Amino acid sequence: MTPRVAVIGLGAMGAPIAHRLREAGLLAAVWNRDPAKSAAFARHGVKVAAVPAQAAGHADIALSVLFDDAAVEAVTLADDGIAAGLRAGAIHLSCSTISPGLADRLETAHEARGQHLASAPLLGSAAMAADGTLYLAVSGTAAAVAPLEPVLAAMAQKTMTVGARPRDAVVTKLANNFLIFALTQAIAEAQALAEKSGLSREALMEMLWETDFARRVFKVYGGRVLERNFLPATAPARLAVKDIELALAAAAETGAVLPTAELGRDRLRQVVRSGWGELEFAALSLLVDRESGLAVDDL
Amino acid sequence: MTPRVAVIGLGAMGAPIAHRLREAGLLAAVWNRDPAKSAAFARHGVKVAAVPAQAAGHADIALSVLFDDAAVEAVTLADDGIAAGLRAGAIHLSCSTISPGLADRLETAHEARGQHLASAPLLGSAAMAADGTLYLAVSGTAAAVAPLEPVLAAMAQKTMTVGARPRDAVVTKLANNFLIFALTQAIAEAQALAEKSGLSREALMEMLWETDFARRVFKVYGGRVLERNFLPATAPARLAVKDIELALAAAAETGAVLPTAELGRDRLRQVVRSGWGELEFAALSLLVDRESGLAVDDL
Repeated sequence: MTPRVAVIGLGAMGAPIAHRLREAGLLAAVWNRDPAKSAAFARHGVKVAAVPAQAAGHADIALSVLFDDAAVEAVTLADDGIAAGLRAGAIHLSCSTISPGLADRLETAHEARGQHLASAPLLGSAAMAADGTLYLAVSGTAAAVAPLEPVLAAMAQKTMTVGARPRDAVVTKLANNFLIFALTQAIAEAQALAEKSGLSREALMEMLWETDFARRVFKVYGGRVLERNFLPATAPARLAVKDIELALAAAAETGAVLPTAELGRDRLRQVVRSGWGELEFAALSLLVDRESGLAVDDL
Repeated sequence: MTPRVAVIGLGAMGAPIAHRLREAGLLAAVWNRDPAKSAAFARHGVKVAAVPAQAAGHADIALSVLFDDAAVEAVTLADDGIAAGLRAGAIHLSCSTISPGLADRLETAHEARGQHLASAPLLGSAAMAADGTLYLAVSGTAAAVAPLEPVLAAMAQKTMTVGARPRDAVVTKLANNFLIFALTQAIAEAQALAEKSGLSREALMEMLWETDFARRVFKVYGGRVLERNFLPATAPARLAVKDIELALAAAAETGAVLPTAELGRDRLRQVVRSGWGELEFAALSLLVDRESGLAVDDL
């Protein structure tokens, strides 16, 4: 049976998603704080709701995509919010980037009303939303996630279920975004080092692209971190210290300022001081794990 | 004409490279500080030199792969070193990870003798060296690099010329290694955040692998940093601050310790304070560039 979807929030991501769902014949209603953005949908005969509860009342699935925790909490839990309008057994699909704690509170509130919460934060750009080529990390119970299939198919080129609790996809999204920022920061530093050292930034990036550098690192060293597998070492931490010290010495000579590299040097030195110098440098993760209270003593 | 190659240094990388070159019919001589490692080559009829100069004297190309600056400097410039043995017009191919400054000094010393220096630090593992599937970033003048073709082909699955000075490939290697460490550190933190937040580490890594996350970040945001292209913004720095603050709040609640994320938050806040909050978050690179004395004022 084709689900009727209400889209709550018609911003940079919500509007193109709503148009995709409309084209797929799934869109029943929309709501937006600023009603001007609803006009394009009204022209197509889509119900424009006055309050979120009304939009949710027209839907089997209320898809919300809003700016932050405050907006999501208000639009979901207010007297005229999504939870107030959604029938029992219906689903709230939260696509916003929110805190895991709020995901937990929403889950509790919906469960208390016999409703389901699923979470599917969006991975991708507005252009990908318009093309239906987003990536989606989805989490929730089977009852919350299974009926979403046609909706997710209209939105995404790839959907991955990452857990049974709505917070799981939220954490995935937060980790994903943090990693994007960290990688971009590191790339920026590498390019600054290149330029200050007389190497062309283009040559460096071409090398990284041509060798499929990033994918190999994520596969090989991401896999080692995942499996806590640091022997045999192809690049022991002891040697990695030497390499990153050389990079920082080159930076110091040329005036390049590399805060991530400095952090990396300090962390690698600490790996060696912890007695892990002969392990693969990916034993960097043991420090983070130990500081975070995770078990590392089985090594 | 087939070049005769001497391999200087038979360590974890040098020994498998020497075997590859021997199988390709290119290996004329070897030298190693500890002569025990030369025995396997002597059995195959390869000349085992007593000092580096003697090995170089048998070669058109002296390939050195040694531990650090001190070893490379001594083995190259000592009275019985590579430079003393190499004939004019011959090539020293330096494959060690050394400082750019030493690459400059070696270049000068070889040029003074009418010799050539090329540099090709190794990207890859000992297993890849044994299979001839290394990646190589090569730099040097055309006179130094062109005759290396059969040697590089026996060693690597892909060779990229990154510049005309030997230091260029050295800087490439240092940037490459620093990036590997930074990425691995960030992955470790993301996995700690996942585990502490009740998301499976496997689910997170599967998501990153399945979406080809790392390659997309290097292409899209690496490209933006390269081109200093921060508009239109799909994720303005102002919003990125919100996302990374959520990640750190989740970390704080669960006890995960994420030094790279903290650094990222501080840098993103500084981007906003610098008046760049509406630019794509990749404007992180403008901070590094400004601190490094590179021009950012054309934005």
